[in-house]
Amino acid sequence: MVKLTPTPAYSLTLRLETSLDPAELGTVLQVIGRQQGQVGSITLIEKTANKILRELVVVAASHDHAEAIVNAVKCDTQATLLEVSDRTFRLHEGGKITVKSKHPLQEYDDLAMAYTPGVGRVSQAIADDPQLVHKLTVKSHTVAIVSDGSAVLGLGNIGPEAALPVMEGKAMLFQEFAGLDAFPICLSTQDVDEIVATVKRIAPVFGGINLEDISAPRCFEIEARLQAELDIPVFHDDQHGTAIVTLAALKNALQLVGKSLETVRIVINGAGAAGIAVARLLRKAGAKDLILCNRRGILSMQGELTPAQQEFAVTQTGTLADALGEADVFIGLSAPGVLTLEMVQRMAKEAIVFAMANPVPEIQPELIYDHVAVVATGRSDYPNQINNVLAFPGVFKGTLACRAPRMTEEMFLAAAAAIAALVSPSELNSAYIIPSVFDPRVAPAVAKAVEECARSLGLARA
Amino acid sequence: MVKLTPTPAYSLTLRLETSLDPAELGTVLQVIGRQQGQVGSITLIEKTANKILRELVVVAASHDHAEAIVNAVKCDTQATLLEVSDRTFRLHEGGKITVKSKHPLQEYDDLAMAYTPGVGRVSQAIADDPQLVHKLTVKSHTVAIVSDGSAVLGLGNIGPEAALPVMEGKAMLFQEFAGLDAFPICLSTQDVDEIVATVKRIAPVFGGINLEDISAPRCFEIEARLQAELDIPVFHDDQHGTAIVTLAALKNALQLVGKSLETVRIVINGAGAAGIAVARLLRKAGAKDLILCNRRGILSMQGELTPAQQEFAVTQTGTLADALGEADVFIGLSAPGVLTLEMVQRMAKEAIVFAMANPVPEIQPELIYDHVAVVATGRSDYPNQINNVLAFPGVFKGTLACRAPRMTEEMFLAAAAAIAALVSPSELNSAYIIPSVFDPRVAPAVAKAVEECARSLGLARA
Repeated sequence: MVKLTPTPAYSLTLRLETSLDPAELGTVLQVIGRQQGQVGSITLIEKTANKILRELVVVAASHDHAEAIVNAVKCDTQATLLEVSDRTFRLHEGGKITVKSKHPLQEYDDLAMAYTPGVGRVSQAIADDPQLVHKLTVKSHTVAIVSDGSAVLGLGNIGPEAALPVMEGKAMLFQEFAGLDAFPICLSTQDVDEIVATVKRIAPVFGGINLEDISAPRCFEIEARLQAELDIPVFHDDQHGTAIVTLAALKNALQLVGKSLETVRIVINGAGAAGIAVARLLRKAGAKDLILCNRRGILSMQGELTPAQQEFAVTQTGTLADALGEADVFIGLSAPGVLTLEMVQRMAKEAIVFAMANPVPEIQPELIYDHVAVVATGRSDYPNQINNVLAFPGVFKGTLACRAPRMTEEMFLAAAAAIAALVSPSELNSAYIIPSVFDPRVAPAVAKAVEECARSLGLARA
Repeated sequence: MVKLTPTPAYSLTLRLETSLDPAELGTVLQVIGRQQGQVGSITLIEKTANKILRELVVVAASHDHAEAIVNAVKCDTQATLLEVSDRTFRLHEGGKITVKSKHPLQEYDDLAMAYTPGVGRVSQAIADDPQLVHKLTVKSHTVAIVSDGSAVLGLGNIGPEAALPVMEGKAMLFQEFAGLDAFPICLSTQDVDEIVATVKRIAPVFGGINLEDISAPRCFEIEARLQAELDIPVFHDDQHGTAIVTLAALKNALQLVGKSLETVRIVINGAGAAGIAVARLLRKAGAKDLILCNRRGILSMQGELTPAQQEFAVTQTGTLADALGEADVFIGLSAPGVLTLEMVQRMAKEAIVFAMANPVPEIQPELIYDHVAVVATGRSDYPNQINNVLAFPGVFKGTLACRAPRMTEEMFLAAAAAIAALVSPSELNSAYIIPSVFDPRVAPAVAKAVEECARSLGLARA
């Protein structure tokens, strides 16, 4: 039987009535425990002469697991289950973001300044001096989160409506981690020309464009064309966010094992948007021995490759297992379970494994802790979480702060160095190669490094 | 000399240091009074042994007027003027809206539910059942405020960036008056096909589209095509908002003078988007004797007219003054000062004048109070303010509440009736034909009427 790993993604609130005998609640907890569920907060809602109403947060590992727990509580306890609600779905009801006014509108004076006739003065001022749009509107701190829904998380091409909850979540992260205002733009087209034209036409409101969950290879062309035709930064987070955080983690992991980026052999599994971007940034950072693999094996010069993949084609052919012989680093941006212990055992001593497929990694970390020096994943419930939220809020904040028209690889290197540097040499260990996403130093440090880099490159316009 | 009408749109904050002698502040106030300025709040900032620092809100009538006041305070008083700031511009710094998260993101559980991996479950659910987008995202209460900046307030074609402060202000109004989330979409194109294509492509996120400040006659085609091709409501506020509120005010004004909509002669000056829409809605409400004028005079069958204008062409020719002979109602949606006392004196007894040009009306109300029964304007500093904010928040709220795919003229009539009905027969008088924009009953009443109407028309989908 697979070990179940409960996640808040599958958590429930059980509204439960018991008698006053605490043993009854005890039985409920035992039943949930036997089902391998977890219990979070237990809240007393109401107590009467002979009944207690409580709400229990129960954490399960899957939909079926959650159902099994609920059935067990129903059948195997004396408690009355009044209501079961899915916490993740409840949180999403009505959406997760709201557009608020920064000023009250309670009397005529407020209206006369924020709206007509006062606003006409401000509009006229911007018409007279277009640069004032950065000072007198939301533009300077507002980001469009643009998706066509073609490659949403691990779910694939689910379309713009189904992508919206992800983009709303991203907008929450922009505000929470960088104080930036971001708004989801989910497009009902997957045509490259139409996407480019549409984003260009809505650009006046925005200080930057964050492309999200757009499938490769279209994402490369869309990003390149938009960046060429717009004077605001365009950032495809699935590419560059992943690349920055991966590089940051790899820097620290290599330091820990005393190897150098210039000489290690790195195998990247997954040659989509993220894999290509990671390969490009690692090469820019000095990596020389890079092998990319996709589901058919090594990207070899003999294979049929997209232009982006051709940049990394090697003479060698073979499977992922072949590629991993004496490799120092495995970077997985691919699919659950594609890495086996046998493959890992072919790697060099003091190997580094980043198994970042989400939510189920390329290999369960427990299987290889004894065989490699460092393991990282994309998950929050294992050490060394490689999460884009470490990068994009600060990258946008720093770029927008100096109004740079674009983001460059130099700025990404600076961001990666800033993230890596937050783990001090004395703290660095195999379970701590990268700061927590909740480390409040991260976004300011990244923003500062990115802004300084942009200024040094002469890109600052403010 | 023109009488100066101070407006908060031109208000200043003066940071002013005086001695402890209150007469010094008295002199400042006298000097401002002599300049015809007004003074609002006076705030004590700091008091030392021999000095007092205060902030005065000073309300002027224009930029030049504000400068004259500041100069007079500098030259004619002993006070030290430390800083002058323009309140309207200060209010606009950094923009007026913000995109906030509805839920905290403070620990891994929050992230795991609002973002990955939890959000993937919600996205998958929407992919499986597209109707869930209305329940699990912001769509059901989110409005795009779309402008191409071609006809912004009275400023004309100032472009999308300069239009942005107006659209932000509109978003504030949506939130303040209807609790709806709205986001500005300012387009860098004025091509009808491109606007239609762009709005269609960004539609997945929105429950409704509010078109704003798009010039006629393009606005008619854009609205009609979008409404035909989208399954969410499309509303051009400059047309329908104005029409609804004008009809509401006219109903009550006619009741006051004991005339009937079916028999009165109505002259509408201004044959752009608003004028045409008002004419259409008045006709739908029962008006039969309508004459439209533009700057060349009566829209006559002999003239060169757009298709929309042809709907209202009459056999009569002549000037606005000709049209007004024995007219019962003047509705101005045109330009400052185009109506004279002489013209008004040609109107029928108990005439009704709506002089809605903004910020300077077709005629100053003071000039005609003795000559007509009712005067209304678009301004907050005269009685009977005809302001779109009475209509659009409730119209959208009611339409979105039942998820009607479009708004119809019947719904606009219902909205107008609901607004008019909030002035009870006992309250109705020549200075109170329409409720205040801050009357909290307005938006709920309009929303209720619009939703009931949509349901009765079989348009409700929720």
